[in-house]
Amino acid sequence: MPARLSLNEIEELSFRTLTRAGADERQAGPVACSIRRAEADGVRSHGLLYLPIYAAHLRSGKVDGRARPTVARPRAGAVTVDAAHGFAHPAIAAGLPVLAQAAREGGVAAMTVHRSYNCGVLGHHAEDLAREGLLALCFTHAPASIAPVGGRTPVVGTNPVALAVPDGAGGVGFVLDQSASVVAKSEVMLRARRGEPLEEGWALDAAGQPTTDPQADLAGSMRPAGGAKGFGLGLVAEVLASCLAGAVSSREASPFSGADPVPPATGQCLIAFDPGAFASGFSARISALVTAISDQAGARLPGSRRQQARQRTLSEGVAVEQELLERIRQEVQ
Amino acid sequence: MPARLSLNEIEELSFRTLTRAGADERQAGPVACSIRRAEADGVRSHGLLYLPIYAAHLRSGKVDGRARPTVARPRAGAVTVDAAHGFAHPAIAAGLPVLAQAAREGGVAAMTVHRSYNCGVLGHHAEDLAREGLLALCFTHAPASIAPVGGRTPVVGTNPVALAVPDGAGGVGFVLDQSASVVAKSEVMLRARRGEPLEEGWALDAAGQPTTDPQADLAGSMRPAGGAKGFGLGLVAEVLASCLAGAVSSREASPFSGADPVPPATGQCLIAFDPGAFASGFSARISALVTAISDQAGARLPGSRRQQARQRTLSEGVAVEQELLERIRQEVQ
Repeated sequence: MPARLSLNEIEELSFRTLTRAGADERQAGPVACSIRRAEADGVRSHGLLYLPIYAAHLRSGKVDGRARPTVARPRAGAVTVDAAHGFAHPAIAAGLPVLAQAAREGGVAAMTVHRSYNCGVLGHHAEDLAREGLLALCFTHAPASIAPVGGRTPVVGTNPVALAVPDGAGGVGFVLDQSASVVAKSEVMLRARRGEPLEEGWALDAAGQPTTDPQADLAGSMRPAGGAKGFGLGLVAEVLASCLAGAVSSREASPFSGADPVPPATGQCLIAFDPGAFASGFSARISALVTAISDQAGARLPGSRRQQARQRTLSEGVAVEQELLERIRQEVQ
Repeated sequence: MPARLSLNEIEELSFRTLTRAGADERQAGPVACSIRRAEADGVRSHGLLYLPIYAAHLRSGKVDGRARPTVARPRAGAVTVDAAHGFAHPAIAAGLPVLAQAAREGGVAAMTVHRSYNCGVLGHHAEDLAREGLLALCFTHAPASIAPVGGRTPVVGTNPVALAVPDGAGGVGFVLDQSASVVAKSEVMLRARRGEPLEEGWALDAAGQPTTDPQADLAGSMRPAGGAKGFGLGLVAEVLASCLAGAVSSREASPFSGADPVPPATGQCLIAFDPGAFASGFSARISALVTAISDQAGARLPGSRRQQARQRTLSEGVAVEQELLERIRQEVQ
């Protein structure tokens, strides 16, 4: 029977596990918080499930638990962060106030992060900017897993895009967070671990043929959502989060899982707009857009499932499998 | 038998037709050039095929052929253009040098256009920025034609995104230009005019059911590419090109075709980055990315078909159906 943990317990367990594995408080704090937020929103793949991987990466040196991110603002609207092979979360947290300030001053600003790592739930970084009253458009990339349509060799990762829209009252109108592939890679890895087959249309094997075997997919290509258009969206993220940021390419990045000690050195790109700099009435237009979607029977506003999970887990906490807790406890000892 | 026109002849015919229909030189020039570029790239839907529609819109007052766009720079990185219900092309052309200057100064800048019109081939505006050495990410929107997944009422248009990447030598690495729907709406309208059925998977009727009848689609919804992810991409464009720009919503915009005299009053959003502001080595990373795609047998770099057409039409010109030339000539008289 699974244990039920409160969100506070999840964050404390995460912090303790990360620090025991070698992270200092400045690195562990933002990552522990990100695990709490992922579990709160029902994004299990970036919740406690990832904690043993984070711990293993701290031990192997794949991530530097004592890294100090460096923030610079080389031009008025350009913020750069060197994550120094630490976690992505403390690097992004260090740069975010500078990005917000630059966006308010200039109307728009962009922040790139390099020598970074898996940034978890991309939508949460976008949401943090939206809660500052800024419109956020964010990109990250990941080790290559999607081949161009017609080709066989992966060039881009599942490379997501996130958009978070402020509601004009300190809250968020909606958060969109979607990857370039039909399904998230974490779902494939979950099925591989459980020995379960994939759904039709998710994956291609190394010869470019459709497969439902998760192992064949991991040796082949994730299928992009909408064919060439999904690959195209992955390319946009690749250009912004890797090429512009000065990060390693998705093709060369070391895996986000596994025990090899090479840092992935991937990147992120966060763009923030101050809506008031461009036109008045932004909040009213967003409100009408939200209503036009959420008033339709059968339609869902992007991010609404996460919002519902957030309300539920706040009071009910989260059910966590004993086997996972046991794996985490072994990390803490 | 179709006539063969050179690109110069296409541009001259377009300019003459637009001015006879009521556009002054400052409005007609950039639009005629856009028709030439669309035909050069093999994008027939925004080439001469659109010219009779432009002319009809000038005559009905749907577009103001004597509009003067106004450019402002309310903050260092924010450029706004009021297209004043004229064509989109002269408005974008008026703002582009200001946007480029702002992007070089700040590292990034954004330009929004409102009271605008169909901007034709979005990728061409992105390409113009890339030829200035800037990385361009552009969005536009269109009268609503895509319902959210599960719903029946269109909320966003086919709302494309375009990315153009400078190659570091005054040229362009590649241009990506893709709409949120499985196919462009112009293809549906072409089939409707010819009385031909649509392909499976392109469209939904007013009850949300799959259809191959173009008329049923025009009363229903274009199917988004990749399901909810295509709709999500359309939403990103809606938020940037309509909500941020202070343009009318896609839901309320008057059609881009048809004779009603109401201006569409839609918008655009162009984001330009100076790659050198963020990290060194951008061009080398882009070059390696391009090679990783174009070296794969069977794979295509985004925009490569347009590039091939451009080389061909430069020497061969374009075959134009007599029936279309006749319709255009009737506009000129």
